[in-house]
Amino acid sequence: MSQKVMLTAAVTGAGDTTQKNPNVPVTPKEIAESAIASAKAGATVAHVHARDPKTGGISHHIDHYREIVDRIRESETDVIINITSGGGGDFIPSLDTPAAGGDGTDIQTPAERHEPVGELLPEMCTLDCGSTNFGNMIYMSPTDWLRKQAKLIQESGVKPELECFDTGHVRFANQLVKEGLIDDDPMYQFCLGIPWGADSDVETLSYMKSRIPENAHWSAFGIGRMQLPMVTQAALLGGNVRVGLEDNLYLKKGVLASNEQLVDQAVKQLNSNNIEVMTPAEAREAYNLRK
Amino acid sequence: MSQKVMLTAAVTGAGDTTQKNPNVPVTPKEIAESAIASAKAGATVAHVHARDPKTGGISHHIDHYREIVDRIRESETDVIINITSGGGGDFIPSLDTPAAGGDGTDIQTPAERHEPVGELLPEMCTLDCGSTNFGNMIYMSPTDWLRKQAKLIQESGVKPELECFDTGHVRFANQLVKEGLIDDDPMYQFCLGIPWGADSDVETLSYMKSRIPENAHWSAFGIGRMQLPMVTQAALLGGNVRVGLEDNLYLKKGVLASNEQLVDQAVKQLNSNNIEVMTPAEAREAYNLRK
Amino acid sequence: MSQKVMLTAAVTGAGDTTQKNPNVPVTPKEIAESAIASAKAGATVAHVHARDPKTGGISHHIDHYREIVDRIRESETDVIINITSGGGGDFIPSLDTPAAGGDGTDIQTPAERHEPVGELLPEMCTLDCGSTNFGNMIYMSPTDWLRKQAKLIQESGVKPELECFDTGHVRFANQLVKEGLIDDDPMYQFCLGIPWGADSDVETLSYMKSRIPENAHWSAFGIGRMQLPMVTQAALLGGNVRVGLEDNLYLKKGVLASNEQLVDQAVKQLNSNNIEVMTPAEAREAYNLRK
Amino acid sequence: MSQKVMLTAAVTGAGDTTQKNPNVPVTPKEIAESAIASAKAGATVAHVHARDPKTGGISHHIDHYREIVDRIRESETDVIINITSGGGGDFIPSLDTPAAGGDGTDIQTPAERHEPVGELLPEMCTLDCGSTNFGNMIYMSPTDWLRKQAKLIQESGVKPELECFDTGHVRFANQLVKEGLIDDDPMYQFCLGIPWGADSDVETLSYMKSRIPENAHWSAFGIGRMQLPMVTQAALLGGNVRVGLEDNLYLKKGVLASNEQLVDQAVKQLNSNNIEVMTPAEAREAYNLRK
Ligand SMILES: [Zn+2]
Ligand SMILES: [Zn+2]
Ligand SMILES: [Zn+2]
Ligand SMILES: [Zn+2]
Repeated sequence: MSQKVMLTAAVTGAGDTTQKNPNVPVTPKEIAESAIASAKAGATVAHVHARDPKTGGISHHIDHYREIVDRIRESETDVIINITSGGGGDFIPSLDTPAAGGDGTDIQTPAERHEPVGELLPEMCTLDCGSTNFGNMIYMSPTDWLRKQAKLIQESGVKPELECFDTGHVRFANQLVKEGLIDDDPMYQFCLGIPWGADSDVETLSYMKSRIPENAHWSAFGIGRMQLPMVTQAALLGGNVRVGLEDNLYLKKGVLASNEQLVDQAVKQLNSNNIEVMTPAEAREAYNLRK
Repeated sequence: MSQKVMLTAAVTGAGDTTQKNPNVPVTPKEIAESAIASAKAGATVAHVHARDPKTGGISHHIDHYREIVDRIRESETDVIINITSGGGGDFIPSLDTPAAGGDGTDIQTPAERHEPVGELLPEMCTLDCGSTNFGNMIYMSPTDWLRKQAKLIQESGVKPELECFDTGHVRFANQLVKEGLIDDDPMYQFCLGIPWGADSDVETLSYMKSRIPENAHWSAFGIGRMQLPMVTQAALLGGNVRVGLEDNLYLKKGVLASNEQLVDQAVKQLNSNNIEVMTPAEAREAYNLRK
Repeated sequence: MSQKVMLTAAVTGAGDTTQKNPNVPVTPKEIAESAIASAKAGATVAHVHARDPKTGGISHHIDHYREIVDRIRESETDVIINITSGGGGDFIPSLDTPAAGGDGTDIQTPAERHEPVGELLPEMCTLDCGSTNFGNMIYMSPTDWLRKQAKLIQESGVKPELECFDTGHVRFANQLVKEGLIDDDPMYQFCLGIPWGADSDVETLSYMKSRIPENAHWSAFGIGRMQLPMVTQAALLGGNVRVGLEDNLYLKKGVLASNEQLVDQAVKQLNSNNIEVMTPAEAREAYNLRK
Repeated sequence: MSQKVMLTAAVTGAGDTTQKNPNVPVTPKEIAESAIASAKAGATVAHVHARDPKTGGISHHIDHYREIVDRIRESETDVIINITSGGGGDFIPSLDTPAAGGDGTDIQTPAERHEPVGELLPEMCTLDCGSTNFGNMIYMSPTDWLRKQAKLIQESGVKPELECFDTGHVRFANQLVKEGLIDDDPMYQFCLGIPWGADSDVETLSYMKSRIPENAHWSAFGIGRMQLPMVTQAALLGGNVRVGLEDNLYLKKGVLASNEQLVDQAVKQLNSNNIEVMTPAEAREAYNLRK
């Protein structure tokens, strides 16, 4: 029997990418269609954010999330839906109002961040386990707010994926587990290469996977040009994998990608190494997800 | 010839510790005296913050810094002065005004954080190379602000110690070096065990020291009960060391420490391992400090 | 530009494998043909041992080596020839004559081990940098003998590949380099998973590659079922790779392989990860080999 | 409660050291007295080899072992006795008779190596878990012989310490445990820095300790000038420790040591780091030794 991994397609994110690659889906319809196309290409999970159809920027509107989820659920393509609960966490420093954040700052409370997850009850959601510099911004996820969010997620019965941008986030994710705020066997997602979080290479991955509980599951992804090599690397180390336009816009140097192309390439890399991709049904069973 | 290490006494910090240990120095006079006592006990460097003599909390007042520095300089005890430039970086999340920080939030601009260093021109200063959750607060040090601060420090001729709370901070410190914002051979300080930064153990230390430039110097410390073991550990791995009430209040379980006791204990541990502590003169020569 | 790696086909070895897989080449003609077929399938290098055409066991006869090399050179297929200099190193313990080795013991002197290399002057050869238990045998390669062999190889102008079965072998290979017995930038081959040498996984590989000189090149392979995963793993870590029936008999569980199938599979794994295989001409230039 | 470690004094070994340091004990009486002095200085365990009183070289004579053990047992000083079962394992390569070993070769069978342990039934014994180059010699410990020795030790009820000179030895020690040839929770001894085994530094130690079973105990020592630093290092990583003239002749550069001085220095290093040394009684209870 060969090894099987769960493959997530992170189809759009909320970054400033829509001008850089026309394949980044923007409207709920586009996002749903890209998720479905990714599933058809082999993805087990579709991880989604909503975007404002007018600006292409982040949207927190429940209607946008609802349309995405409804469209995916109504399609004939089975895929596990994973909604971000990272929501509004961007703090843009301003020298004029240093304690308040400048133009573009977008900080939601735990309840607000949880809304799309709590309303739409996907099978999975992400939870970003700490604060860090994120380029010139600060991604803000304070510990007590995380405890509140973890509790809301737990009560909703959705399976959280504990996103860790650096090693301190792994420590805090372990702490949430210890405090009983995460049910069953926890799932970690190591998000590698973000400026300025943990680096994207095998030593870092190997270190991070050595710090999680015995019964934990883990996945990892690299951003940018490390996305595709990290698919193979993570799977060879026994983890799950993720690709998609949220984290990387290129198929190879100079060649813009679509989500389904990235999924297809990931499947090809995995299969060539005798590793298969889980179906949604297999992942539901392996990780005890609520359909 | 035996190995020599630079030993820093971080005598007070700015944390909420004055009620927990009466030896934490508060007034400029107390802080200067504790620095001098630490030097007499064997410390090479005294790392200082100022505190408000009335409240015991953090002070950004240049007069407080000036008094501390003047008193140390006027004493007959030689010690390298290292002033924090971490200044106002505390963001206390508030559910009521999430984007603005709540009560106690204290965010200074780069110029403000630099003031005591620029005015008093110590031989060394710290520079905290990133943002992170720090207990229930967020320590905020945005990248562009760090670039500004690094430039101010560079222009002042003070030797910065690049404090790293997690691995992403090491990456950004490397980036500052690469951008030419740090002169000569850089000095890193790995600050281990902070909730929620990198963990305090030998695997983490070993990983971090593997990520800095060839010509870099490094130091490390652990907080709380890991402070004293980490002195020996860091020195055995070839790094410099730090103790003091900023990071740890106890000599051993249940026994409150003074700064000079912690320095004395560190010296004892080092000497018993055939490792000596540098004099200020030796450190000036080794690290090309401006007296 | 994508990454390029050197791919070695180790086509036969000297182990007790000919009864287990009929594709293991035995006669000089079969060995040459398998090397040529491997090159056609994409291998950069063919690593050869000679076998006794009658018994299938190890042969030290120069005529067998000569015929293998002549046949490869006379073919129209370009491939770098790498001859073992591991020669007779098998010591089979015997309880009756413990100091002398029992039936099947086959220990050659350095000059004897060097003969095929010195006579036939291939572009590359292996050098096994230490002794270790090898199953129930002892592979015997004493340090002073290794110094003699290294000198003979150096004088012959052949590029040695420093085979390391465990971490002490890496230390001794470094010592040979330090003593000036290896020219130019050294090449290491990490041989992983041999019972009872170093293990075959990414942590071990990562450790070993951290112990070699800055200017060194390296390659790695795993034995048995780790052979194919290790191809991808080593290449992702920046090293060269090796497959072939010397180290592994199966294409996948229950399916016996040929050398060209293993090469083909390795190429497929590498290409799917956007890694290309060097031509012999590219490897000659990269590693300064004597054609 | 502070950490406690078991401290072994390896008082003499069998190496060519008696001319280099007059404190190396040679006669059974000297060896016993040095073991007793080490125990008085704080050692928990005395690890002994016998030497030929006339030549100072290795002795396999049971009478020599018996006198050592009797003298220690009859003293009023309690110490756990650990007898080597590494016995005759030296193979000195000879170019004239390559398969037979030259002058000085001294290979005993498993039964012969076991004799002092089986006859004298100490509380502990060592078992060297593999073959390796040892300077210009080969230390020979074939796998099937090790299985026989492990079984003899098991039947005698003595607690074996699984000595590992390199990572492959750790793998084979794990294999012995898996095959049921080692009782209870196994004890590993990482012997670091031997030319040409694993290196003596914290990365290597950290790697090795990551490869043993969950329920295993471990100890480590470095040879030569790494002996004393490794005492602190191993204890800080949670392991037991060993010093003594078998592995190191110097107290510091240029200053010859005695066993009791090395023990005293180790105790000092440990105590200064708030680590205590176990009494024999404490070790018996911790490791379930047969008194
Ligand atoms: Zn996302
Ligand atoms: Zn400070
Ligand atoms: Zn070979
Ligand atoms: Zn011994």
